[in-house]
Amino acid sequence: MLSFESDYITGAHPKVLGALIDTNYEPLSGYGNDKYSTRAKEKIKAACQCPDAEVFFLAGGTQTNRVVIGSVLRDYEGVVAANTGHVALHEAGAIEATGHKVLTLPHKDGKLEAGTLQAYLEAFYADDTCNHMVFPGMVYISHPTEYGTLYSKEELTALSSVCRAYKLPLYMDGARLGYGLCSYETDLTLPEIADLCDIFYIGGTKMGALCGEAIVFTKKNAPLHFFTMIKQHGALTAKGRLLGVQFDALFSDGLYFEIGKHAIDMAEKLKAIFAQKGYPFFMQSPTNQQFVILENAKMEALKRQVTFSFWEPYDKDHTVVRFATAWSTTEDDLEALKRIL
Amino acid sequence: MLSFESDYITGAHPKVLGALIDTNYEPLSGYGNDKYSTRAKEKIKAACQCPDAEVFFLAGGTQTNRVVIGSVLRDYEGVVAANTGHVALHEAGAIEATGHKVLTLPHKDGKLEAGTLQAYLEAFYADDTCNHMVFPGMVYISHPTEYGTLYSKEELTALSSVCRAYKLPLYMDGARLGYGLCSYETDLTLPEIADLCDIFYIGGTKMGALCGEAIVFTKKNAPLHFFTMIKQHGALTAKGRLLGVQFDALFSDGLYFEIGKHAIDMAEKLKAIFAQKGYPFFMQSPTNQQFVILENAKMEALKRQVTFSFWEPYDKDHTVVRFATAWSTTEDDLEALKRIL
Amino acid sequence: MLSFESDYITGAHPKVLGALIDTNYEPLSGYGNDKYSTRAKEKIKAACQCPDAEVFFLAGGTQTNRVVIGSVLRDYEGVVAANTGHVALHEAGAIEATGHKVLTLPHKDGKLEAGTLQAYLEAFYADDTCNHMVFPGMVYISHPTEYGTLYSKEELTALSSVCRAYKLPLYMDGARLGYGLCSYETDLTLPEIADLCDIFYIGGTKMGALCGEAIVFTKKNAPLHFFTMIKQHGALTAKGRLLGVQFDALFSDGLYFEIGKHAIDMAEKLKAIFAQKGYPFFMQSPTNQQFVILENAKMEALKRQVTFSFWEPYDKDHTVVRFATAWSTTEDDLEALKRIL
Amino acid sequence: MLSFESDYITGAHPKVLGALIDTNYEPLSGYGNDKYSTRAKEKIKAACQCPDAEVFFLAGGTQTNRVVIGSVLRDYEGVVAANTGHVALHEAGAIEATGHKVLTLPHKDGKLEAGTLQAYLEAFYADDTCNHMVFPGMVYISHPTEYGTLYSKEELTALSSVCRAYKLPLYMDGARLGYGLCSYETDLTLPEIADLCDIFYIGGTKMGALCGEAIVFTKKNAPLHFFTMIKQHGALTAKGRLLGVQFDALFSDGLYFEIGKHAIDMAEKLKAIFAQKGYPFFMQSPTNQQFVILENAKMEALKRQVTFSFWEPYDKDHTVVRFATAWSTTEDDLEALKRIL
Repeated sequence: MLSFESDYITGAHPKVLGALIDTNYEPLSGYGNDKYSTRAKEKIKAACQCPDAEVFFLAGGTQTNRVVIGSVLRDYEGVVAANTGHVALHEAGAIEATGHKVLTLPHKDGKLEAGTLQAYLEAFYADDTCNHMVFPGMVYISHPTEYGTLYSKEELTALSSVCRAYKLPLYMDGARLGYGLCSYETDLTLPEIADLCDIFYIGGTKMGALCGEAIVFTKKNAPLHFFTMIKQHGALTAKGRLLGVQFDALFSDGLYFEIGKHAIDMAEKLKAIFAQKGYPFFMQSPTNQQFVILENAKMEALKRQVTFSFWEPYDKDHTVVRFATAWSTTEDDLEALKRIL
Repeated sequence: MLSFESDYITGAHPKVLGALIDTNYEPLSGYGNDKYSTRAKEKIKAACQCPDAEVFFLAGGTQTNRVVIGSVLRDYEGVVAANTGHVALHEAGAIEATGHKVLTLPHKDGKLEAGTLQAYLEAFYADDTCNHMVFPGMVYISHPTEYGTLYSKEELTALSSVCRAYKLPLYMDGARLGYGLCSYETDLTLPEIADLCDIFYIGGTKMGALCGEAIVFTKKNAPLHFFTMIKQHGALTAKGRLLGVQFDALFSDGLYFEIGKHAIDMAEKLKAIFAQKGYPFFMQSPTNQQFVILENAKMEALKRQVTFSFWEPYDKDHTVVRFATAWSTTEDDLEALKRIL
Repeated sequence: MLSFESDYITGAHPKVLGALIDTNYEPLSGYGNDKYSTRAKEKIKAACQCPDAEVFFLAGGTQTNRVVIGSVLRDYEGVVAANTGHVALHEAGAIEATGHKVLTLPHKDGKLEAGTLQAYLEAFYADDTCNHMVFPGMVYISHPTEYGTLYSKEELTALSSVCRAYKLPLYMDGARLGYGLCSYETDLTLPEIADLCDIFYIGGTKMGALCGEAIVFTKKNAPLHFFTMIKQHGALTAKGRLLGVQFDALFSDGLYFEIGKHAIDMAEKLKAIFAQKGYPFFMQSPTNQQFVILENAKMEALKRQVTFSFWEPYDKDHTVVRFATAWSTTEDDLEALKRIL
Repeated sequence: MLSFESDYITGAHPKVLGALIDTNYEPLSGYGNDKYSTRAKEKIKAACQCPDAEVFFLAGGTQTNRVVIGSVLRDYEGVVAANTGHVALHEAGAIEATGHKVLTLPHKDGKLEAGTLQAYLEAFYADDTCNHMVFPGMVYISHPTEYGTLYSKEELTALSSVCRAYKLPLYMDGARLGYGLCSYETDLTLPEIADLCDIFYIGGTKMGALCGEAIVFTKKNAPLHFFTMIKQHGALTAKGRLLGVQFDALFSDGLYFEIGKHAIDMAEKLKAIFAQKGYPFFMQSPTNQQFVILENAKMEALKRQVTFSFWEPYDKDHTVVRFATAWSTTEDDLEALKRIL
């Protein structure tokens, strides 16, 4: 069946899979002590123009968030996030399970605004009883956000400034970073993100890998014994090659950006199809996830021919649903969708 | 370089990799809601002759131990293990990070004996102040053990009886289960293990998969909302197909046992080579890991031609090292080792 | 200096202190295994008209919240609370430190409304992806609330009904319960609270004890091995008599209610003084905490003669402050305050 | 009934209780921001001859251990302790509940020897795979130990040296410190302990207070935001005066040492009575806890006339029991015991 259900419905991009096939028989040490992992890290540092970066590979997004946040925060600290943030809502309490509170602030189009953060921090430290409360210890943002929106360079710079003024590490969840970097509307490059953030991760799972996320500590600021923390969280991959080889492929010959660009091209066409047919959008998304408002009857009818994701109820008679594109989305898929609509 | 460093030095068994290649382009739902995952679970239940089993797929061993133990134990409980158990020593405190103590008992050849467990439990409940202590909440064993040894049917039956008398779930870490099942010396079958244990996992990573372990709750005894607990631990794989497809391959046409048998055949030959050359063994292992005592000078010399694992110091002049076989070990490898020795 | 800073500025009510003095030399077993603790529990059960109740004594409020909530919730659950709830804001992340999320909902005058709870629960279970989220596992309310307000019998009954429909234990933080029970405006009795709630605690620290809170599990529903959980949280008092003797005194001859009534009488007079002088109130509180809006200049001037608590900024020029009465507040104190104002 | 059950069977020493009575009506700020707490801290710093010390008051021993250890350790670290240590056995998993492992080493007479610690640390860091294990992060000792034994100055100096060589904070559990300081056989003074340890606590509960332990960070080394951590653990006392006033009394006019000396005098006489009657001792204890081996029949008979604590089985027919003295033990009690024996 035609599927726009998510950006992880198919296996690996052929070049990623090819790299796994090509290296399959080589004996390599475990736990990331292999040449492909080393090489992939160097390529990522180069792509970030960030020679001081420390790079680690984990398997998935929630895992990455809990390992990073759990390892960076001190016991008396929580992580500040927009109330729409993935860590605040859809990670089954993974952050709290590490003993830390998610301190939520109101969002604007899925984004945390610098002014909102600044006001919260000022009020917090102005409160005499703040030592009875959870201290803010880092700031979490997602880019693209959970609604597919993007921070502008100006917005990210402002947020970064507030974080630095308060000595709070700024952490970007880049599960879909490639789609952000290749959006027609972005003015942020990977080196700029590496410069403005203290920690971020480059998503692989939703960008053509079987699994895998690359954490980048941009300022030689990896927590002490981070390797051991990965192990403690159950996140250390015995066959570390699985992650190294895939990221080595993703960061060879611009593949990561090629995948991003393809999915964005497909998303823009998909957006045009919906617009042309008169469907309203829930939010204007410049990335690979498109949020469309469907009449409930129409939604049920569509479901028989194409898969997509339920997002949230809109009103009694309408629902917000998500259509996602990925490396494997084809022009034929779009044509088929057009016909169905 | 010739390598006997571990049983996870190479990628996937060709049939496992083939299955990933064959299914790569199929659009499938995420999080394990795909037909391959479903099919793999049915095959595992059949292989275990355990229709009541509930099966879940995770990525790695330490992850599996922390998710299972952390989810099964109540807050006032700890897990009982031999003091040589993986969870007690080599998981970077993953169990304690979930808030639970590992209650260690003395081992015999890496095994927890029924009598040792019984004596501990009797003394615990005889102590008036036991409500100031951590209650035993489940029993962890590994099979094969960390020293490659195996429980006999009689030993496992005795242990299982003690556990049932005290209503303690018996959990078997089967990271290398296939090597145990295919050992020349075992008298335990997979259905018998499923019968005697309440929970166990069938290791994939060390048995020819890129990653993956299959948890089997044998008595419809999966903890409530175990799926959510997997997510909370950061252990949910978005592309769940990665695990489902691999286990579907491993449990098709007896592949899992074929891999086990091959590695055992290779290990027995390797054992014979060392014995023939007069090397003493640290422990008699009937499985794919062989623990040899080397003179330190000899060890250093060998390292230049073949990789193996440091295990532990034996005395001032000798070291215990481990040689492991796997699906990818060849007769040629053994010949090469023989020449080097 | 004249002080209305809090309801814990003085030591113990003379009758409570007297009981400690009278029993000081008696040798008694530790950890609550003493006759005073037993007797106090019986008196509390009688006062609650709740023969099935199980009663435990802890030292303080945040401690009680973390022990109760941490012990009752399963790993995949969080506690639902108004976003003004003490557990959500002023306990330094104590709940999260036990691994659980505080799921906040909007408040009305510091209260969680039944309709708000119902709507949240309906939406939660209607969401297909709810197994990626924290499950609601219990409901926390405070009575009096953090703003001194009270649930009516109708409101508490409605909330209790929603909780029971969803099988969620309803837990009341009664740090200041006595002031609620003795308010001129309440229509809720202690037995009614015991009937409508599944768990609540009767505050001692803020009601004339040196320390101490009495947890009441109203339906034989104490978590298994709750004694051990108390110990694990570091909340077990070796000289358990300290708590037992005090609660025995508080629940003898109606002392607990006498203290409550006295403080309420004082609070109503204090309220009248402020009203008479034309000070606006931030919220209408029928209990011992009164929230007054002061001009900042006036506030600074007052501070030199009387202590009170900063609550929150009101606007640029005004601040919300709290005046609290307690067992030790006298008519003279009120006269003095009147003169100062 | 005559009782030697523990050193917390009676209320407070009359001077301690007197101080609570004398200060009962003074209005004081909460959370330890009162003049008695401040004064008590200064007195403790003076008694320790440690002007750099930072002092905090908590309510009980297990609480103190979990707050200190939980706050000092980083996530990848555990606490090293003798396998007889209170934190390893009798705190219901309080340390593990904070996410940290107790790394146990063999004891000698209840003590951790410097050589044992040194050997463990050397082996740990010599192991290539130590980053898969829990790192030692601090060292816990109790003084007097759980068996009433004491470290000599030489032993503590040696232990302290090893800790400093490895940059591990040395933490002493001084639940019964006063009895150690007043033992006839000790050669360690309080200032020496403050010098050799990085953190220790001065027990109050078992030394004549109703509750209370004084934590001393001896080198300006209190963890950042330790106040907030106390709150988070549920260990912050609203009426902080309760602890401050008691410690102010205990450290006025040498009361703490007077209490210690009295109990030691009583213990030596008790020891002489048992010795004279021919009872064997389980361990030679120079402090207030005496461990006697009783025939089981004799034990049952004795129980009818005097209370004492079961310690552990000795053999089939004998049991180790504990008799403890305290501030309230009298010559009459000893005479009565003598008659009974």
